[in-house]
Amino acid sequence: MNVGGRHYRTIWLNDDRRAVDIIDQRWLPHEFRIVTLRTLDDVAIAIRDMWVRGAPLIGVTAAYGMAIAMTDDSSDTALDAAWEKLHATRPTAINLRWALDAMRALLKPLPEGERAKAAHGRAAEIADEDVELNRAIGENGLEIIRKTASGKKPGEPVNILTHCNAGWLATVDYGTATAPIYLAMEADIPVHVYVDETRPRNQGAQLTAWEMAGHGVPHTLIVDNAGGHLMQHGDVDMVIVGTDRTTANGDVCNKIGTYLKALAAKDNGVPFYVALPSPTIDWTVFDGLKEIPIEERSGDEVSLVWGKTASGDIAQVRVSPDATPAGNPAFDVTPARLVTGLITERGVAAASREGLRALFPDR
Amino acid sequence: MNVGGRHYRTIWLNDDRRAVDIIDQRWLPHEFRIVTLRTLDDVAIAIRDMWVRGAPLIGVTAAYGMAIAMTDDSSDTALDAAWEKLHATRPTAINLRWALDAMRALLKPLPEGERAKAAHGRAAEIADEDVELNRAIGENGLEIIRKTASGKKPGEPVNILTHCNAGWLATVDYGTATAPIYLAMEADIPVHVYVDETRPRNQGAQLTAWEMAGHGVPHTLIVDNAGGHLMQHGDVDMVIVGTDRTTANGDVCNKIGTYLKALAAKDNGVPFYVALPSPTIDWTVFDGLKEIPIEERSGDEVSLVWGKTASGDIAQVRVSPDATPAGNPAFDVTPARLVTGLITERGVAAASREGLRALFPDR
Repeated sequence: MNVGGRHYRTIWLNDDRRAVDIIDQRWLPHEFRIVTLRTLDDVAIAIRDMWVRGAPLIGVTAAYGMAIAMTDDSSDTALDAAWEKLHATRPTAINLRWALDAMRALLKPLPEGERAKAAHGRAAEIADEDVELNRAIGENGLEIIRKTASGKKPGEPVNILTHCNAGWLATVDYGTATAPIYLAMEADIPVHVYVDETRPRNQGAQLTAWEMAGHGVPHTLIVDNAGGHLMQHGDVDMVIVGTDRTTANGDVCNKIGTYLKALAAKDNGVPFYVALPSPTIDWTVFDGLKEIPIEERSGDEVSLVWGKTASGDIAQVRVSPDATPAGNPAFDVTPARLVTGLITERGVAAASREGLRALFPDR
Repeated sequence: MNVGGRHYRTIWLNDDRRAVDIIDQRWLPHEFRIVTLRTLDDVAIAIRDMWVRGAPLIGVTAAYGMAIAMTDDSSDTALDAAWEKLHATRPTAINLRWALDAMRALLKPLPEGERAKAAHGRAAEIADEDVELNRAIGENGLEIIRKTASGKKPGEPVNILTHCNAGWLATVDYGTATAPIYLAMEADIPVHVYVDETRPRNQGAQLTAWEMAGHGVPHTLIVDNAGGHLMQHGDVDMVIVGTDRTTANGDVCNKIGTYLKALAAKDNGVPFYVALPSPTIDWTVFDGLKEIPIEERSGDEVSLVWGKTASGDIAQVRVSPDATPAGNPAFDVTPARLVTGLITERGVAAASREGLRALFPDR
């Protein structure tokens, strides 16, 4: 999407046709830094240390990592070593594993001399496929926004609340939860986005707000506590969030706090949508609450807040007493009963086994 | 309660028997500073700039402000001027108005020569009455904790989630929501408190956590997003929060985000209690959602986070893009249907007109 009037993806081939350029997201929203990843090591560090984040973008970056590795050494040994090195960066990321396996399956049968070119070609395809997937999600979500807009007075915006960053920064472009919003902008439907700051890592305040500001989407940052109150007062027309994993029953595992917003939406008759590319549906899991293990992350993410000081430096401040321990579950599960619909690339499914099966009979 | 093994109230008469000492809460949890308020101006600044906060404590501080004013000049003019000056500090605080009116009503009929002594006496009484009120709330809440503890294995703590700071720092001692917790500690009932950080002003992280750490209450700081997840997994036995204003129907106006916790409690069968001194019941208001106006505060409270840097300095950091506006509703209303019980100084009332009338037939 746009940054300062110019279109960017989150990752693109460098002018040398070999390395890749990325947005180093660690500095957002305070600094917009583009860096070039030239070696397998560069790519591994960028994924491990979260210069890039978001499951789809991690997958694409890893695919380019394989391609860059192949331009240096296209032997079987190098191929397996690249797979191992990249897989170790974020071992629980599903898209990472998927992209690495896809690349290896393509490259292994090829003569070594053809691997580098094929790898770069496939990595570019995976990137383009991600954009198409998100665009399709966007088109399906756009219909929901359009319908809501048609019930409004002319010029009155559709108010959408989102949590965390399921935006273009988490993908190659468009994002998942944000794709309908960006397409609504393209279609001249007035929208306004309430951006949950999304403690503890503040992805809403740092990333989603930055995306919205950069692309010119009217938006308001709110604390995670505020959404229920806004819904009680009719200020939210719909919620759209992303998901890290959706069960075959339609339970949604997403950033901690999503469940609270779903409860408030239900209590106030506000539609609650989840935007997801179908590869994030886990067809082997049914009961999200019982079956999905929730990552417990470092309490420092709660106790320490990162931002820009008055003098423009980037610094961390401790918000709690030194003696106070912090708990930090990273995700929660929103039961399917609270979800109005799952916006996928094939259409909007009811959040149920039947709903998902109807759209994905091939699974 | 205790700080470093020593008992403190939040306000006490200075050794000169004229000024008052307070804990300057602006520096908590990073620095424990005690300051002496010697003049009416000192007191007005301390209230206005939130060196002291919390409705009960504001009321008591204002009462001492009137007393200090009387020791300087006990004329009718000075009395009225002190009332005006103190009332202007936080004009919407109900306890402030109540305390000032009570002081003026007492002092006006007295000869000027008796006013200073009477004022100091009454201020001390108001402080003691607050402590007794909170202790009575604590005793009534303690019975609930005791009952829950009796269903646990020996040594297993009762897990209590609280939001914001309805602790001793907001009162003279004990606090409201925290009083049952401190009395459970006194009664050797094991408790563990989940402290919501309470964005945007982080009163949970800064004040409640500091109270718990200082008094030795086992506790864990969590982001406001985490409570629902913890309740889904049976990690919370009960919620106890405070309130700024309760309607005659039992609707509860409290810090933004309280409503979301009440929804999660309901969804998971977790009892949701509100601790309140009966003077905060507004018998003239019935429908909290429709009738209570919600203060919209500065967006800077959302965009800027205050804390301690690695080098020990106190600093603010901006967490969001400069171009992003922030919305900041300060309170929300939890409908009575989500409230298990109102813990008052007279007992635990059902959150309904009938429930409240039964305990307060005199109102």
